[in-house]
Amino acid sequence: MEYIHGGDIYGKQIDLDFSVNVNPLGMPKGSVEAAMEGIGYASRYPDYNCTELKGKIAEKKKIDREKILVGNGAAELIFAFCQSIRPCIALAVAPCFGEYERAVQSVGGRMKYVPLSKKADFEIQEDFVSMITDEIDIVFICNPNNPTGKLIPNEIMNSIIRKCKETNTYLCVDECFLPFLPKEVEYTLLGSKYPHVIILRAFTKIYGMPGLRLGYAVCEDKELLYNTRKVLQPWNVSIPAQMAGIAALEDETYLKETHRLIQKERNYLKEEMKKGLAEKVYDSKGNFLLFKAQEDLAEQLLKKKILIRDCSNFPNLSKGYFRICVSGHKENMELVKRWKEMSEQ
Amino acid sequence: MEYIHGGDIYGKQIDLDFSVNVNPLGMPKGSVEAAMEGIGYASRYPDYNCTELKGKIAEKKKIDREKILVGNGAAELIFAFCQSIRPCIALAVAPCFGEYERAVQSVGGRMKYVPLSKKADFEIQEDFVSMITDEIDIVFICNPNNPTGKLIPNEIMNSIIRKCKETNTYLCVDECFLPFLPKEVEYTLLGSKYPHVIILRAFTKIYGMPGLRLGYAVCEDKELLYNTRKVLQPWNVSIPAQMAGIAALEDETYLKETHRLIQKERNYLKEEMKKGLAEKVYDSKGNFLLFKAQEDLAEQLLKKKILIRDCSNFPNLSKGYFRICVSGHKENMELVKRWKEMSEQ
Repeated sequence: MEYIHGGDIYGKQIDLDFSVNVNPLGMPKGSVEAAMEGIGYASRYPDYNCTELKGKIAEKKKIDREKILVGNGAAELIFAFCQSIRPCIALAVAPCFGEYERAVQSVGGRMKYVPLSKKADFEIQEDFVSMITDEIDIVFICNPNNPTGKLIPNEIMNSIIRKCKETNTYLCVDECFLPFLPKEVEYTLLGSKYPHVIILRAFTKIYGMPGLRLGYAVCEDKELLYNTRKVLQPWNVSIPAQMAGIAALEDETYLKETHRLIQKERNYLKEEMKKGLAEKVYDSKGNFLLFKAQEDLAEQLLKKKILIRDCSNFPNLSKGYFRICVSGHKENMELVKRWKEMSEQ
Repeated sequence: MEYIHGGDIYGKQIDLDFSVNVNPLGMPKGSVEAAMEGIGYASRYPDYNCTELKGKIAEKKKIDREKILVGNGAAELIFAFCQSIRPCIALAVAPCFGEYERAVQSVGGRMKYVPLSKKADFEIQEDFVSMITDEIDIVFICNPNNPTGKLIPNEIMNSIIRKCKETNTYLCVDECFLPFLPKEVEYTLLGSKYPHVIILRAFTKIYGMPGLRLGYAVCEDKELLYNTRKVLQPWNVSIPAQMAGIAALEDETYLKETHRLIQKERNYLKEEMKKGLAEKVYDSKGNFLLFKAQEDLAEQLLKKKILIRDCSNFPNLSKGYFRICVSGHKENMELVKRWKEMSEQ
């Protein structure tokens, strides 16, 4: 089975990975310690109820613990919801994260894409709402969107929610990148009470732990949650992941530091890239930047041991589109340096 | 969602857990170190191909790496195969591990049980073979069986394989407990070339790492493997689990030590239990013992902070059946001591 994603560093000679949208601060210190401690408990089965972790999420996010489903990464939950809902037709914007389509296809369904307008710099438009019809079983929205970094304006999100309700359509809102925004509370659907809405959250990106696998979903529809839990094995979340997650939520300063860093470094990269490195850099609210550049950029940078995400396999994108994550200042400077060297050769 | 399994120590006041069938030696030292090292890499995505781990399994078990599917515990794979095969009717002996039925039900199928004869001490009989008919989509066999500890004689296993082939039935053989046998090579189906057979293996039990989640399946049918991989997210196996698994397979002495310990301690427990503690103790080839005793034994032992597996919820068992794992000598002596104290009160 062939996957095309960022982060596939295995079997490659690289020393800087800009292909995955992971927090450059790395796991919070407390999470590292907790995960290590968790290894010491590995001869026990994990708590299949994730009691303590759910309690901590419920407390921090002010949501009812009964409405939380924890997963072995948010990706597991995308597949699990598809297995319980079994959509025939799903809807999403193009480009967006590829696993929604894969999950839909895994149950024999098909993904219908609404292309985002290049002229509008890939900002979502109201016309997306009109594409939500009775025949659509589920809509996937990533907010902010991956790989464009564009936030869905609240008015459009509200229209989508309303239209999904009218047409009996599930709405899965993937908020994996939302915690990178200082003002995430203004955009999150956590705490909203729509029974047809599934909210996805990952620890992977914001807490820099994709290798441990941890994510969760929040949903008001208890029957859907029950049916989705049923397609998963009981012990789907490892002990180190549960413990790392609890510790992450207890770290109050980590998010603030993240916001400062991402904002500063995203600006730095954008400014440098605009000085002739990239043809066009799209504004992004996420911890990553979509841009256009010479078609062989990824190959050329790979020669300099830097991995970036070639976005040509995203629907509605083509050769010459790339995505980089916002990394730490040292790494970002190094990227700019090697990129410039390359351009000057 | 309510599960009933061993190992549910969360929220209970216990100091000795005899309810899970996990190697009392704990994780191999090399695996602990590797898992710890893996935490240090947690800001990367796991290798979705599990390249190195598959290579090590292929080398040690002398099987083709293309035929291996790695899972977040063997339990994930039971569910994944059910999702790809979507059996309407499955067949298994009763009693056996409960997750087969749950996985079958999760895709709307139903489990048909063939009761094992109490008179024959729960040994499987040839009559099981005649129950495999065209209407059965998949047969689940745990070898040795959980919770009875009985091994399937090779002649009966061969009849089952043959009959499954004749009736176009998949056969899933769960060998999670087989590595506890010094002579596992005489019973394993690893290396056999039946296209309708799925072999399950776990690191959980033999390498004492249920909290990390790691298992694998081996299957000759590449299309089935492909379809089963497809229902799983790409990054289903964490980095610490992959690394711990590789290290475990490199440990040559751990299994020998396990065999010595289990044989000795299983005998010790059996002999002690026969001195009036249990009504009947069933011979077992596994690292656990099924027995009959007073109906309130589990409750009484829980008062003494010992958790054992009440087997009354297994099909074809009833109140008064219990299972304990074979633990280390100190723990086993402590169990016997507290059990005796209880009996004398």
